[in-house]
Amino acid sequence: DHAAGHHDRMSMEERLQALEAEVARLKAQPALDRVDGGLRARSADGSSRFRFFGRLQADYAFYRKDINDLGSGSELRALRLGARGTVAPGWDYKLETEVQTGQKVRVTEGYIAYTGLRNTRIQIGNLFEMYGLEEYASAVDVTFMERSAAIDTFAPDYNQGVALSRWGENWSLGVGLYGDTANNAQAKLNESWGGSARLVVAPRHEPGDTVSLGLSGYWRDKTDNTIAFSARPDSHVTAFKMVDTGAIANVETVTAITGEFSWVYQECSLQGEATQVRVNRNAGNPDAVFTGAYLAAAFTLTGESRPWDMQTATYGRPSPLGKAGVWEIALRYDTLDLNDTIAGVRGGQLETVTLGLNWYPNPLIRFDLNLIQARAEKDYDGNGTLDTDQPDIAQLRAQLSF
Amino acid sequence: DHAAGHHDRMSMEERLQALEAEVARLKAQPALDRVDGGLRARSADGSSRFRFFGRLQADYAFYRKDINDLGSGSELRALRLGARGTVAPGWDYKLETEVQTGQKVRVTEGYIAYTGLRNTRIQIGNLFEMYGLEEYASAVDVTFMERSAAIDTFAPDYNQGVALSRWGENWSLGVGLYGDTANNAQAKLNESWGGSARLVVAPRHEPGDTVSLGLSGYWRDKTDNTIAFSARPDSHVTAFKMVDTGAIANVETVTAITGEFSWVYQECSLQGEATQVRVNRNAGNPDAVFTGAYLAAAFTLTGESRPWDMQTATYGRPSPLGKAGVWEIALRYDTLDLNDTIAGVRGGQLETVTLGLNWYPNPLIRFDLNLIQARAEKDYDGNGTLDTDQPDIAQLRAQLSF
Amino acid sequence: DHAAGHHDRMSMEERLQALEAEVARLKAQPALDRVDGGLRARSADGSSRFRFFGRLQADYAFYRKDINDLGSGSELRALRLGARGTVAPGWDYKLETEVQTGQKVRVTEGYIAYTGLRNTRIQIGNLFEMYGLEEYASAVDVTFMERSAAIDTFAPDYNQGVALSRWGENWSLGVGLYGDTANNAQAKLNESWGGSARLVVAPRHEPGDTVSLGLSGYWRDKTDNTIAFSARPDSHVTAFKMVDTGAIANVETVTAITGEFSWVYQECSLQGEATQVRVNRNAGNPDAVFTGAYLAAAFTLTGESRPWDMQTATYGRPSPLGKAGVWEIALRYDTLDLNDTIAGVRGGQLETVTLGLNWYPNPLIRFDLNLIQARAEKDYDGNGTLDTDQPDIAQLRAQLSF
Repeated sequence: DHAAGHHDRMSMEERLQALEAEVARLKAQPALDRVDGGLRARSADGSSRFRFFGRLQADYAFYRKDINDLGSGSELRALRLGARGTVAPGWDYKLETEVQTGQKVRVTEGYIAYTGLRNTRIQIGNLFEMYGLEEYASAVDVTFMERSAAIDTFAPDYNQGVALSRWGENWSLGVGLYGDTANNAQAKLNESWGGSARLVVAPRHEPGDTVSLGLSGYWRDKTDNTIAFSARPDSHVTAFKMVDTGAIANVETVTAITGEFSWVYQECSLQGEATQVRVNRNAGNPDAVFTGAYLAAAFTLTGESRPWDMQTATYGRPSPLGKAGVWEIALRYDTLDLNDTIAGVRGGQLETVTLGLNWYPNPLIRFDLNLIQARAEKDYDGNGTLDTDQPDIAQLRAQLSF
Repeated sequence: DHAAGHHDRMSMEERLQALEAEVARLKAQPALDRVDGGLRARSADGSSRFRFFGRLQADYAFYRKDINDLGSGSELRALRLGARGTVAPGWDYKLETEVQTGQKVRVTEGYIAYTGLRNTRIQIGNLFEMYGLEEYASAVDVTFMERSAAIDTFAPDYNQGVALSRWGENWSLGVGLYGDTANNAQAKLNESWGGSARLVVAPRHEPGDTVSLGLSGYWRDKTDNTIAFSARPDSHVTAFKMVDTGAIANVETVTAITGEFSWVYQECSLQGEATQVRVNRNAGNPDAVFTGAYLAAAFTLTGESRPWDMQTATYGRPSPLGKAGVWEIALRYDTLDLNDTIAGVRGGQLETVTLGLNWYPNPLIRFDLNLIQARAEKDYDGNGTLDTDQPDIAQLRAQLSF
Repeated sequence: DHAAGHHDRMSMEERLQALEAEVARLKAQPALDRVDGGLRARSADGSSRFRFFGRLQADYAFYRKDINDLGSGSELRALRLGARGTVAPGWDYKLETEVQTGQKVRVTEGYIAYTGLRNTRIQIGNLFEMYGLEEYASAVDVTFMERSAAIDTFAPDYNQGVALSRWGENWSLGVGLYGDTANNAQAKLNESWGGSARLVVAPRHEPGDTVSLGLSGYWRDKTDNTIAFSARPDSHVTAFKMVDTGAIANVETVTAITGEFSWVYQECSLQGEATQVRVNRNAGNPDAVFTGAYLAAAFTLTGESRPWDMQTATYGRPSPLGKAGVWEIALRYDTLDLNDTIAGVRGGQLETVTLGLNWYPNPLIRFDLNLIQARAEKDYDGNGTLDTDQPDIAQLRAQLSF
């Protein structure tokens, strides 16, 4: 054949040289790092990187009604697509958007990060504020389908600002200054702004042997002088907020403090957080104080441990050891108090107990079953007496994150 | 030079070994499968895959007004971007979003699929219900710019649920249970839900020699007790619905049945569908029944045949044999009856005849010209007598799908 | 080991042949062209290409109020993600979407381009109209954070249509016919449509030695018979329009003409544009005429020149020569007159002086500081006398574009 004829006319030395040149050319190209449903690539020298990522959470919830209609049904809890990467040594970025019900879309993370200083990360753009253990963990990695209402009701979420994180062998610190979320429409009013910080110490964080303690706080100037807190019963398919302060007027600032702990021993894990939020009001109105707390335990039946990441001071998802995937059971008690009688706020009290069963057939897919007993006390019909609403909830999630 | 000097100090055997190691390393990297405007990649062992895809449909329509203003102009009928892939053996996914006019976005497909059973696919998430031949074909592959109003007016479209498809040598079956679309805002009401199924038999499906017969049906529980059906004149640039039942009240459930057939012989193809929809009402109201049917013929001037896919039981687009691309002419008669005098619904009757000319210069791009004569009978001015509106329509589409 | 044993049984000739075959297979795969935060890939023969791109602009603005509240705060000015590529020889595309505040999204560019004719590009879809020097340059490459109100107030922006561009050694011409933007909701009214054109001559365009002169014009048929022009003070975080004609009724058509020049000498550059817009009215109403002009100078402290692209007749961003990145200072005077007393339009007059400092640490990231003195004259309180509002503005941007 032609190629063989061509080879005949080349010495073995020439052929080797040609091959060496070809292989050098191939090695000098950018390369794919990983294809696992998503895509990761890097420049030949590794100084630039690109990753395409996404997530999907398809939820189905069934509500046994007690007093209030919750509305059984389905929800695409999250569909996110985005890109992240390294533009040049020391310069990272992340661009992530989420499609929401009602044909809306929001920016979740959209930032530039400077990583040129050791164990330090400076971010600018739309960020998830570094606040709380369960909050700052990725929503695809938390143990239950929904984060605990106790903390999530008050957490600052995604806001546009600038943040600094530093970490060491056994500690992690995040601080930031933030305006409002990038998704809000513009107003003539000066934007609400605030700061938040989180410090976590993890004296031990070996695989299967982790202990952490942390403290988060935030302060926010409410330029519109109003705030409202409300919560669903640890289930998001319903639109109904079982507890709800309604708009609180004459608000100057809001401050909050949250304590966290976690403990992982082999297949077992335990974590809890407690928060106190103070709404500081002007014009002689009394401040309003709200509280919440949760305690959660999890156990993997298949031997895996929850992995700790010291940089972010959060847990990731367990990665399957065997072909059966990870099977995990979990139990949580979650309580939230949105009443402050002195301030005249009667948002109600919420307690939930959640039994969770999670299956991770592979590192990128997860199925959750959550059985929830909720109990809320609030004057729903406005007749001046407290009503007790105790719906039962069964909810399922199919999740993908790559 | 330096490299040559380095080579002098290595034996030919050493150089061969070095090359073999380098080539093994290159082969062990993930690789690109295809770049054709889009991008496909796979892990080195092929067990994981990633594909980035998109589509664009830019439409321009000119309406010769008869009675009603239709509003000549342009529309970006679809701009979709998304990713699909294989996360691990047996686990596929697809995440696709579409930008819509009015600065909205919707999830079209967002699902996880289990493919670990032979000739079987189980999907969970937001899905296109498997219903009807033209409906279940991709919108970028149907012969005319718009699917036939006869069927499309009633088709269930994208909804969140769980579905199973199985197929054999000569048949394909799809069944599913679905809630509402993931794009709808949440409500306290229990979500509307239903089921649909489609069975298709194709005794012959060689290239250029295909015959298929199929039956689809659906059932839906309308928890909001209301439904409305309406249709444009097989042209989507206009916002005007030429036939429209308005909201039908006291609806319990809606059921529909659709029969389909197709026949391809070399460059020729013929397909048709007929549907009957029954709106089952409560409170003593009579049921409403609506019908529709279309018949379409197509002929490629350049020799290509429409390719059949047995798994989905749909036709793909013809792929060009020569440099001229595919040139295709097509004719369709489409009729829809939204009147039911017994039930007191006077939605109107619509008939269209469409002459289509399609050019596919390459496998990913397509230009369509549709000339439509529409005829609708409905009491548009509300004076109690039927009006006959007969607009003529010329519409163009530039389409990309990769 | 096993591999060595395998090699022992193969002759050197056999091993060479095996390697040659492997390398040929690797070379026949599609390949990554570039990973620099984004991703570019091509088919093995280079005939098809894919690029994933994005941009982020995170802005922070502080307004010293004079008369009107402007609302200090932050804005994610742009988060765009998209893909572009070559589908087949001669056929390009671009699909780009932008997330906006208020949880909306719009299509910026969504088009198919035919590039099969020499020095010619024919586009169909949603396009940025080719109009004006600063307008037609990419928003990530203009010198100041916001394009000059003088021109931007009237520029046609993104619209769906068809366009032709041709260019030669020293000239570039763009002409197009456009309907309305693809992001507008549909209406029964015939769509507004129009045409625009731009001709630019650049007798010299060497690096560091460029001179250009150009003329743009547009004509638009306003089918809704109304138009409004308004402008912010060259700062977009605020929602407040300092000058605003309000809706002008009885509009038939709008025509505009804009002259442009630019001059680059080594680190220095100068550019300016002037526009006149005529609102042609019916029903005996006098036409309204508005004008605007700006002059801008820039100087890079680090030696780079602004690069000219003859095809689009626009400037790109300077690319860093050294490790410090590009440091650039710039000054602009921008003036806009939205008054026409004969036509009875009192939109106001706006003047701004902007001092800009830009830092490009690498080719894909940029930080801007703009200090603006604005001066607007308009009857804000509606008491019949002109008010003069002179806010001072400091604004910052962190920008990524890959």
